[in-house]
Amino acid sequence: MEWKSFFIPTLREPPKDAEEKSHILLLRGGYIRQISAGVYAFLPLAKRVILKIERIIREEMERIGAQEIYLPVLSPKMLWELSGRWKDYGDDMFRLRDRKNQDFALSPTHEEIITYIASKEIRSYRDLPQIWYQIQPKLRDEPRPRAGLLRTREFHMKDSYSLDADFGGLDISYKLHKKAYERIFSRIGFKYFIVEASGGVMGEGESAEFMVEAEAGEDRALICSKCGYSANAEIAEAVPEPEDGGDEKRIEKVHTPDVKTVEDVSSFLGVSKKRIIKSMLLIKKESVPFMVLLRGDYDISEAKLVKVFEKDIRFATPEEAVNYLNASLGFIGPYGVKNMKIFADESVRDIKDGVTGANEDNYHIKGLSVLRDIKIEKFVDVRRAKAGDLCKKCMTPLEEKKAIELGHIFKLGTKYSLPMNAKFLDKDGKEKPIVMGSYGIGVERALAAAVEVFSTNNCMKLPVSIAPFEVEVISIGNENKSSEIVKQLKEKGIEVLYDNRNVQPGVKFFDADLIGVPLRVVVGPKGLSKGTVDLKILKTEEVVELPLEEVSSKVKKLVEEEKNG
Amino acid sequence: MEWKSFFIPTLREPPKDAEEKSHILLLRGGYIRQISAGVYAFLPLAKRVILKIERIIREEMERIGAQEIYLPVLSPKMLWELSGRWKDYGDDMFRLRDRKNQDFALSPTHEEIITYIASKEIRSYRDLPQIWYQIQPKLRDEPRPRAGLLRTREFHMKDSYSLDADFGGLDISYKLHKKAYERIFSRIGFKYFIVEASGGVMGEGESAEFMVEAEAGEDRALICSKCGYSANAEIAEAVPEPEDGGDEKRIEKVHTPDVKTVEDVSSFLGVSKKRIIKSMLLIKKESVPFMVLLRGDYDISEAKLVKVFEKDIRFATPEEAVNYLNASLGFIGPYGVKNMKIFADESVRDIKDGVTGANEDNYHIKGLSVLRDIKIEKFVDVRRAKAGDLCKKCMTPLEEKKAIELGHIFKLGTKYSLPMNAKFLDKDGKEKPIVMGSYGIGVERALAAAVEVFSTNNCMKLPVSIAPFEVEVISIGNENKSSEIVKQLKEKGIEVLYDNRNVQPGVKFFDADLIGVPLRVVVGPKGLSKGTVDLKILKTEEVVELPLEEVSSKVKKLVEEEKNG
Repeated sequence: MEWKSFFIPTLREPPKDAEEKSHILLLRGGYIRQISAGVYAFLPLAKRVILKIERIIREEMERIGAQEIYLPVLSPKMLWELSGRWKDYGDDMFRLRDRKNQDFALSPTHEEIITYIASKEIRSYRDLPQIWYQIQPKLRDEPRPRAGLLRTREFHMKDSYSLDADFGGLDISYKLHKKAYERIFSRIGFKYFIVEASGGVMGEGESAEFMVEAEAGEDRALICSKCGYSANAEIAEAVPEPEDGGDEKRIEKVHTPDVKTVEDVSSFLGVSKKRIIKSMLLIKKESVPFMVLLRGDYDISEAKLVKVFEKDIRFATPEEAVNYLNASLGFIGPYGVKNMKIFADESVRDIKDGVTGANEDNYHIKGLSVLRDIKIEKFVDVRRAKAGDLCKKCMTPLEEKKAIELGHIFKLGTKYSLPMNAKFLDKDGKEKPIVMGSYGIGVERALAAAVEVFSTNNCMKLPVSIAPFEVEVISIGNENKSSEIVKQLKEKGIEVLYDNRNVQPGVKFFDADLIGVPLRVVVGPKGLSKGTVDLKILKTEEVVELPLEEVSSKVKKLVEEEKNG
Repeated sequence: MEWKSFFIPTLREPPKDAEEKSHILLLRGGYIRQISAGVYAFLPLAKRVILKIERIIREEMERIGAQEIYLPVLSPKMLWELSGRWKDYGDDMFRLRDRKNQDFALSPTHEEIITYIASKEIRSYRDLPQIWYQIQPKLRDEPRPRAGLLRTREFHMKDSYSLDADFGGLDISYKLHKKAYERIFSRIGFKYFIVEASGGVMGEGESAEFMVEAEAGEDRALICSKCGYSANAEIAEAVPEPEDGGDEKRIEKVHTPDVKTVEDVSSFLGVSKKRIIKSMLLIKKESVPFMVLLRGDYDISEAKLVKVFEKDIRFATPEEAVNYLNASLGFIGPYGVKNMKIFADESVRDIKDGVTGANEDNYHIKGLSVLRDIKIEKFVDVRRAKAGDLCKKCMTPLEEKKAIELGHIFKLGTKYSLPMNAKFLDKDGKEKPIVMGSYGIGVERALAAAVEVFSTNNCMKLPVSIAPFEVEVISIGNENKSSEIVKQLKEKGIEVLYDNRNVQPGVKFFDADLIGVPLRVVVGPKGLSKGTVDLKILKTEEVVELPLEEVSSKVKKLVEEEKNG
């Protein structure tokens, strides 16, 4: 492919409204253009990468016996009402009405349609197991699209769904997917790791995420370097970083004018965040208030909250705080509260000399001893674990990594088959619900993640497995020689991008760095006078001088090596 | 692939709510399931076909130098306002608001996004020409989804767009597409024909449709067997079927109680439809009424109406008829009308003894002579041509064919680049608008059309080029022998579906007819006793008895022959 007949609108200057590396590089390399917030056009280079990622995914899905299907974007409301997600999905789901006033969701995921089809078509245990997959555009009205392709509102997902007769079958389908995902991410070249994860809106069963460490990642994973435990910070279980809870004192009310946050209280009173007790007012089923206490150095995990208190909960409004506790949200606390249950995160158990809101605006209480002064309904785990917490299995301090989620596998169980009536007749003639799993990989995010982890800030670098071309040949001056090399490379089945544009060499080098083709052959007068060309390997930044006649076999060898891992 | 590990939910009974052959067969063969009106799920067999169609399309698009891209479903309102189509598209376009109250279209086509990208990225004549294509889901809120995949609300389109510096360049891009489309449809196996077409909402430039004759087709094409003229009936130009217009008579008002339609008037008064003058009341720019006259045996062509009177026109409401003409729509006519212009289709020119509405409910007028009695503003061509009309070029009677539209190519010219400001600097340093073309193929419709034209009512038949498998092997009794044949076929690179299910032979044959794999090998006890198997070629319904050792080479030969046309 000649550069001049290929549309690669590189940008000389870094774009103004991009911050993350992959976002900047994908814009600069002419891979993508934004059409709206979180909505992108994929230009020819990006499309080539995406087709390669999809091919790897297809090959590995077929290898585990998955069958490719294709489901629509438009999904009738009725199916989402059966599953309960017409409501649960909230604003994250795009919705529309057609010309006949029928309501549709733009499918953010396809459990509902899959379960609907299964309910109609699967009759007997003989029809099971099934694994169905698709590579299909998903639409999600993300509140905060960010970082280019890392979080978008429209993207392709490889989503697959397993249908089994029992949980033993689901185990097998789940493990097959795990294996397929390991192969997919290895073939792309990722050093991924696998963490325990939360089901989110998908369900409450076992679930794992495939992650790759990256500064731009918005996920946090906690890892135990000793025993190998790893989990998404949202759900990681850990022993709180130990802290002396102080000695018991008398309770004292202190004036803290306009001092509301943990940070403010800590500095105003000169007390460690670990002695501050955050009080959160929550409402269950729209009307039952309850309080949750958390040590000041932790954040709440919403995933854990939902797990402990189930899904019909929400944080109270400022008005409700005044209503139930006579104070603004920044000044509420458990002391003296009798009109609601109080739950405490394990992290506050040992606090004997603590600070908390006084249920009176502009006042806090000092000297609070949790076990002495508060009637705790139950100790729970609702905190987001963090670096320094101790591994529950081996008490080693955990490390925290910023990471990008590459894939997610879920055991759904019967969460969808029961309400949607997807049943089959078992060997014993009994009607049973189909046991399901759901598995996803974001296609464009894999591209963005690859750019994040393999590139430098100024040079896009893509692995051979998914790069738009395997080698770029830059001709400087002698087009006969370079055309000959291009021909030889093509004869060996190598995908070549040939830059023989009539522009300055500097422009060609600059552009080459922007588009990240992993191998680069420079055919210039200096080398040619000795019968050599320069081969640059972007990954290692190594430059090798090669005799003309060795170029194609050397490139072929490098490509093969990289592809075979 | 073994049938038992593949999801093929065939239906023993014809489905109740399907009428067209392809719809019935695709449901019965377990290819598709309906999710909502005009919205389908594509099951594994259909997905395999679609991937093959897409591969053929990709190869032929790449061959003309087209570059693959991918554009989003979500398309911001602003772009459609620039082109004017936010309004023009009407109810056919799905629209939604996101969580931030921004308006989006779900792109029914992508001229706007393409032109937007071109306006940002194309600077110079050196950046031209470009051909960009994608295979992407389109959403259109069709008023009447019909016939399974023939007219749906969500489908994939290969849409491509050419960008050129001038109309000469557009000519070349248009011809390249024509060539590519010829190759694509030939490779699938269609006996297509090409007709002149209307641009519809796309534009007013030259445009052609690729069609295939089919009873289920909703398009009508008019063809001259002598000179080769062919056009969509909507825009075909032809000389009206000649008819004696009668001799001049005196005008007479006749009582025609509740007799409104051409059919009714014709039988009530015992007069040929060709002597009846249909009068249509139209409104231009929301307030200017005008009348169009048409011979009773013709239908109006809306495409021609728009071409003659431009787009700001609509048919009058019943209230407006009363308002302007003091009569219901069934009784309006041109005689005595002074408050509006009257245009006449050429077909009424020679009527000397005609019948038309009297502008009084329940009355018509007889003895109307068009040239004598009516002030005609202008004679125009707004009728839908029909079989028997004469070819304008050679006066041969035209034939009319029912057909399915497979593809459509348009010269857009500067219709989008001008309002959306997509300009480039030409060699002479002058800013000029980019000259564009737009080209589409419906992917799923190609599948449905293939089923329509190649299948019988009870047996799906697909060409080897796109069939989900090339050969089906049915084992009856002896699984060792049949597995061996399957192995030999696979070694030759043949795609085999192997039916070794533990069901009655009758079920296997029945199912085989439903799914339409083009070659069928039956390994049964009768043949095996002689060392032979039966090979059925679905296309010709020929059955050949073959020695075991010749099966794989014979199948290979047939597959190759079919693929190479």
